[in-house]
Amino acid sequence: MNEAPTHDGELNARDQLIDAASQIMRDGDTVDLSLSELSLRSGLNSALVKYYFGNKQGLMLALLERDMRNIVNSLDALVAKDFPPDEKLRVHIRAVIGTYFRFPYLNRLLMRMVRDASPEVSRKIADDYLLPISHAYSKLIDEGVKKGLFRPIDPQLFYFTVTGAADRFFSARLVLHHCYGQSEVTEQMRDDYADHTLDIIMPGLLKRPD
Amino acid sequence: MNEAPTHDGELNARDQLIDAASQIMRDGDTVDLSLSELSLRSGLNSALVKYYFGNKQGLMLALLERDMRNIVNSLDALVAKDFPPDEKLRVHIRAVIGTYFRFPYLNRLLMRMVRDASPEVSRKIADDYLLPISHAYSKLIDEGVKKGLFRPIDPQLFYFTVTGAADRFFSARLVLHHCYGQSEVTEQMRDDYADHTLDIIMPGLLKRPD
Repeated sequence: MNEAPTHDGELNARDQLIDAASQIMRDGDTVDLSLSELSLRSGLNSALVKYYFGNKQGLMLALLERDMRNIVNSLDALVAKDFPPDEKLRVHIRAVIGTYFRFPYLNRLLMRMVRDASPEVSRKIADDYLLPISHAYSKLIDEGVKKGLFRPIDPQLFYFTVTGAADRFFSARLVLHHCYGQSEVTEQMRDDYADHTLDIIMPGLLKRPD
Repeated sequence: MNEAPTHDGELNARDQLIDAASQIMRDGDTVDLSLSELSLRSGLNSALVKYYFGNKQGLMLALLERDMRNIVNSLDALVAKDFPPDEKLRVHIRAVIGTYFRFPYLNRLLMRMVRDASPEVSRKIADDYLLPISHAYSKLIDEGVKKGLFRPIDPQLFYFTVTGAADRFFSARLVLHHCYGQSEVTEQMRDDYADHTLDIIMPGLLKRPD
């Protein structure tokens, strides 16, 4: 770096590094990052990782924050809205599937951070993402039960079900690519899978008419 | 090794290495293996890995074979049996959840092998495990549709749904351990989750009475 980055340049380089990390994880079906690949992919000096994020783990946490914050905020906004809870849930499940389609590494990155970070950082990940999502699920299920739409189910287990359904694109891409020589999971496959998932999940949640 | 192993000793040492690899992956929430940890855990010289499996990847493939073969064989036997397809599916889903509870690394190991092995080995993994499972799902869904029990659904997408539901224990253990200080996912939690999964999945598959 010959010059101190401008404020705009600063924002851009930081975001470019996060973007490059995201692309490496997506394209390589991995959550392992090498600084040399990051430098190659972003066109930036890898010393900037230290400058902006302290270290590689800091960059991975920033990427997690970018992708998970969006989920948490959208879910909170959705739960607060004034339309039927079953419709909210349909919107949410489609959104989660869309997010994992774009960022198929997301659950693996989350779990890698939980496993490898210090106890304080693991705890912060729980507080920042997992607990808010858990509370939103409780609220949404509770609303549906109170309105007589949903069977009473365990919101925590139901969160497993939804994440499990969404977290398939990582495996799907690998299998298609390496076993069947197909290059990409398409948007059509994403939409078909979202339709299928809603068709499977919703009847199990909705209260059957007496 | 001072002596050539006996035939019994040979079987035991080979199985012990596979067992040790399985335990390391389970306890460490990882599919990374170090030869030194393997040696420590099994009490065997890590040179035996070369002797029995050629290399570390060979050992990982043997572990995959042990865990996946069981799934494929049980599923084939189940599909061939003479009882209602919805009951078969319930038995199968409980079995898959039980398998992933015991071997929470299983899907990650499968995907790691698909990603890192040579194209020939990836292809063999598809032929040995993924295609037989895919065929069994087609057969089972088809049987249910013909008997008027199931809605016609895409068996490949449904396989995603089931694996996605089962592949939650890896994440669950990590989150409980690192974020909440709980040491173990219990058998009670496994059974509750299996009940929940069946309650959610089955109504979406079963044809509703006209």
